[in-house]
Amino acid sequence: MHAIGVVLIQLSKVRTPIILVNFKTYSEATGRNALKLAKAGEKINRETDVCVGIAPQYVDIAPIVQAVSIPVFAQHIDPVTHGSFTGHVLPESVKEAGAVGTLINHSEKRLKLADIDAAITRAQEAGLVSVVCSNNSAVSAAVAALKPEMVAVEPPELIGTGIPVSKAKPEVVSNTVDLVKRVNPKVVILCGAGITVGEDVAAALRLGTQGVLVASGIVKAKDPYKALSDFAQAIIKT
Amino acid sequence: MHAIGVVLIQLSKVRTPIILVNFKTYSEATGRNALKLAKAGEKINRETDVCVGIAPQYVDIAPIVQAVSIPVFAQHIDPVTHGSFTGHVLPESVKEAGAVGTLINHSEKRLKLADIDAAITRAQEAGLVSVVCSNNSAVSAAVAALKPEMVAVEPPELIGTGIPVSKAKPEVVSNTVDLVKRVNPKVVILCGAGITVGEDVAAALRLGTQGVLVASGIVKAKDPYKALSDFAQAIIKT
Amino acid sequence: MHAIGVVLIQLSKVRTPIILVNFKTYSEATGRNALKLAKAGEKINRETDVCVGIAPQYVDIAPIVQAVSIPVFAQHIDPVTHGSFTGHVLPESVKEAGAVGTLINHSEKRLKLADIDAAITRAQEAGLVSVVCSNNSAVSAAVAALKPEMVAVEPPELIGTGIPVSKAKPEVVSNTVDLVKRVNPKVVILCGAGITVGEDVAAALRLGTQGVLVASGIVKAKDPYKALSDFAQAIIKT
Amino acid sequence: MHAIGVVLIQLSKVRTPIILVNFKTYSEATGRNALKLAKAGEKINRETDVCVGIAPQYVDIAPIVQAVSIPVFAQHIDPVTHGSFTGHVLPESVKEAGAVGTLINHSEKRLKLADIDAAITRAQEAGLVSVVCSNNSAVSAAVAALKPEMVAVEPPELIGTGIPVSKAKPEVVSNTVDLVKRVNPKVVILCGAGITVGEDVAAALRLGTQGVLVASGIVKAKDPYKALSDFAQAIIKT
Repeated sequence: MHAIGVVLIQLSKVRTPIILVNFKTYSEATGRNALKLAKAGEKINRETDVCVGIAPQYVDIAPIVQAVSIPVFAQHIDPVTHGSFTGHVLPESVKEAGAVGTLINHSEKRLKLADIDAAITRAQEAGLVSVVCSNNSAVSAAVAALKPEMVAVEPPELIGTGIPVSKAKPEVVSNTVDLVKRVNPKVVILCGAGITVGEDVAAALRLGTQGVLVASGIVKAKDPYKALSDFAQAIIKT
Repeated sequence: MHAIGVVLIQLSKVRTPIILVNFKTYSEATGRNALKLAKAGEKINRETDVCVGIAPQYVDIAPIVQAVSIPVFAQHIDPVTHGSFTGHVLPESVKEAGAVGTLINHSEKRLKLADIDAAITRAQEAGLVSVVCSNNSAVSAAVAALKPEMVAVEPPELIGTGIPVSKAKPEVVSNTVDLVKRVNPKVVILCGAGITVGEDVAAALRLGTQGVLVASGIVKAKDPYKALSDFAQAIIKT
Repeated sequence: MHAIGVVLIQLSKVRTPIILVNFKTYSEATGRNALKLAKAGEKINRETDVCVGIAPQYVDIAPIVQAVSIPVFAQHIDPVTHGSFTGHVLPESVKEAGAVGTLINHSEKRLKLADIDAAITRAQEAGLVSVVCSNNSAVSAAVAALKPEMVAVEPPELIGTGIPVSKAKPEVVSNTVDLVKRVNPKVVILCGAGITVGEDVAAALRLGTQGVLVASGIVKAKDPYKALSDFAQAIIKT
Repeated sequence: MHAIGVVLIQLSKVRTPIILVNFKTYSEATGRNALKLAKAGEKINRETDVCVGIAPQYVDIAPIVQAVSIPVFAQHIDPVTHGSFTGHVLPESVKEAGAVGTLINHSEKRLKLADIDAAITRAQEAGLVSVVCSNNSAVSAAVAALKPEMVAVEPPELIGTGIPVSKAKPEVVSNTVDLVKRVNPKVVILCGAGITVGEDVAAALRLGTQGVLVASGIVKAKDPYKALSDFAQAIIKT
């Protein structure tokens, strides 16, 4: 385990290895439930050296930041500035609410290429760590050329299946590591899709990633704290 | 002045005539500034019979609702449910954060027709008042057929200009009133674009609307409280 | 059977009742195959009073118009003018290639509401008959307010299933007829989704429509000419 | 001057250096006018060693291919297959109509990142040369990671201005050449925006590109043949 070198990440509370939990719009992770889940993550953050970050819905960012000490990410930002952008997610507003980073281009919220580039720039201007999602290794390499802090590769066909990318498609992960490192060795690489148990996380790290992006595997677990603890133990042992 | 008949509106704190202030992503209406602006609106709500509603950015909804007693609207919702919709705005999360309604299809966040229909349904299921924006009178009539609580007509070419729709294009407003009433007489009609002084609001009401959707006219006013007060006085005198 | 009153339709070769065949991107309806299918439609046009129109892919419009005398529709147009709109479908270019009309807002190519409004206007300016698709009766009424020549209601969940809308969801069709007629009695109403045999077409006409929008039911039939003939006979007998 | 090594390009009539003329939806380049313009390009192709390609509107592809011997590109394709994709541009239909390649992601028709990746793959499957547009050097490098045959960098703020990118922003072009070559040395690099005279083309080649993507500079020239000839002479002398 090692702290990564990117200045922006050092300044935030974000460290690697990281377990980044995407709350999506799951009922188990909305409003009061989101707060409960954030507390489980905070506990792991305190008890271990593993960094647990969470990406709740926009409206839940401020209440969670006020109540819990945990790195909070937005699920998306728009490449906009202060001005006439009704309904858009302004990086600065997410930052002022207390988030430290943001997902960009999740497979459920895909962006145009030029907008990914602009969103990464806007995130950096607002002091937010960018975690840009990709759907395969070639797209991961493309993303790396845009210089985000992290790229998270997730084959969309495995998302939500419980079939872990790190075991079912290890070549997607290892090719991503190879290609991304060649284009931009500073980028932190995560993988996701189908991750449900610690062993999936350990496999991901052995393939060269520095963490996982996970959603239903934690949010819909019977005991999310236990599931997170299992993930963290696997990381510590790897 | 009269309370409107739609059940959903009666249950919320929303009344007509209404001044609905869209905060967009203006720096004067983000984070701490959003809270200050909300307080100015709350004061008018207390001091007059005119309803002032505000539509801040998503992340500012919860902090404002906690601090200020004023009808809060989202600037947009997505027609999604609980589930796998990363980065989308779930109506239920907006409601749980304390919003009473939402803009839909603002000219800066236009939606596909089927999605407007679905978003109105989802807003109603979540207990949110729908204020659907339109760009001309024909589109207003189309929107009325989808049965939102309110339609707000705003010719996009006048937005942010300070040239009031109610004076520069009164026929857009009166045609909207005619066409919408024919399609669905229950829909509350607002107008917007270029509204900056009380007289613009009075003109809007004389044309048959029950209020205004306003943004820079209030947000960028030297003294937003004074500007709102001017609007409210004009309504009371009309 | 009667010729419909809209001037634009009278000027084109389009009559009602109409069988409008959407070629989509089916291999059976691309390039040379598209031409063959067009010829089957032309034969029905000659042999009966029923109007058969076809909507091939953009690149196939000109070759079909040159070879076959049949009303040809584009599958989509963009609400653009002559100018800097790379990759967009200009109504005038479709018209110059010989098309008489266009689908707008098919469920596989949904548009923003303001763009549907603008596309209908642009189609009329270019002399193209607009057939605007909708997914339910409320959306059909909304579309009718925008004054296209035709609206075609197609519940997306039945498209391509072989379960005919006119039999499985007759209330969607009859509600569409009711609501559309109230908003705009001049609009010709078609229905589609799951239409595969003449009896489905007859049922559609009995519900008050003036024709059908069909795709796989004809394109993927063993003998498209025979299938079209079965449709036409059902219309003539109704 | 040299033929480039990519197999797909060798098999088509596409050679470098290349002048690729985007017809957009200009009236001077629609229908009959498109055919006239194509003939001017054909003449240069015959008279010089410089390759002139054209990208007309979809409906004009087949008539041009039938009448003129010149490499024709689509302005866009969709990453779809044969099937239910109404209104989409199927690579195979463009190919069957006689096109040899396609623009992808032009700044007036931007695509989501995953769709650019899929469109390049679909173009290659259909035997079409991919010319992917980008708006700056970082995005060019990202595109190169997706392995198209060509990338064309065009700063959107210069498009249509007559201010040539190769003179006003030479660093955008040279940075693109550097970054793209590092990521994928096989990719042919073009540049565009503001190119109107031969000297702009010569400057582009001196910066390391193998041609230009041009629109109004040729299409709106008083004498397009003369303007093309000026471009070709500049290339031959460089």
